[in-house]
Amino acid sequence: MTEQQTPAVDTALAYHRAWTAGDLDAALAQVADDVVCHAPPGTLTGTDALRGFMGPFAGSLTSSTLLAAFGDEDQVLIMYDTANPAVPSAPGAELYRVHDGRIAEIRIVFDRLPFALARGDVVQA
Amino acid sequence: MTEQQTPAVDTALAYHRAWTAGDLDAALAQVADDVVCHAPPGTLTGTDALRGFMGPFAGSLTSSTLLAAFGDEDQVLIMYDTANPAVPSAPGAELYRVHDGRIAEIRIVFDRLPFALARGDVVQA
Repeated sequence: MTEQQTPAVDTALAYHRAWTAGDLDAALAQVADDVVCHAPPGTLTGTDALRGFMGPFAGSLTSSTLLAAFGDEDQVLIMYDTANPAVPSAPGAELYRVHDGRIAEIRIVFDRLPFALARGDVVQA
Repeated sequence: MTEQQTPAVDTALAYHRAWTAGDLDAALAQVADDVVCHAPPGTLTGTDALRGFMGPFAGSLTSSTLLAAFGDEDQVLIMYDTANPAVPSAPGAELYRVHDGRIAEIRIVFDRLPFALARGDVVQA
């Protein structure tokens, strides 16, 4: 695993470690109140919306592995893999903009298809 | 856009620029013959399999924007957004392992759900 060290990377990894451990309070302590999160279902604004989006998934994790983390003074990019009972491998990537020591913007990429199939939201045609 | 400069980043970005321009030959010139690509549908081995997976998507792109690119001596992580007629915003992230100046391993993360819906492979339940 490649992991760079800048204060912004530290902030992003503190967020990542906390939510993948199921501790949303500690995760959101790293996040600006007016955070903007671009996620596959759409754009969320504010920590309450972020908690509502990440909380159920964070609570379902059975494992999490950080694959890479790179960044500079204000941007951080990570890739990780996760597992939960419904989806045994659900990798994701997140691009963070960090401002004044807090995460101001997050762009999340992951594959919704196995989750949508597992939940029965979609079915094979 | 944040973009670091290492030889491995240069290799990964040459691959990325080429395939997003639809030039699979130039892209695959950056890739080891026995490349292993971990993609949402499964693991592909070899440049022919990679061409078969990336080619149709590369040929369909109407735009592509690199959002961030970071790396060190042998790993590179990028995030980008793409558009094609079926999916107006299809962001992706790719983690590359570069060995001897060629891409030896790729891990791709993107959201298959809008593509599966657009193709009719799945339907809303």
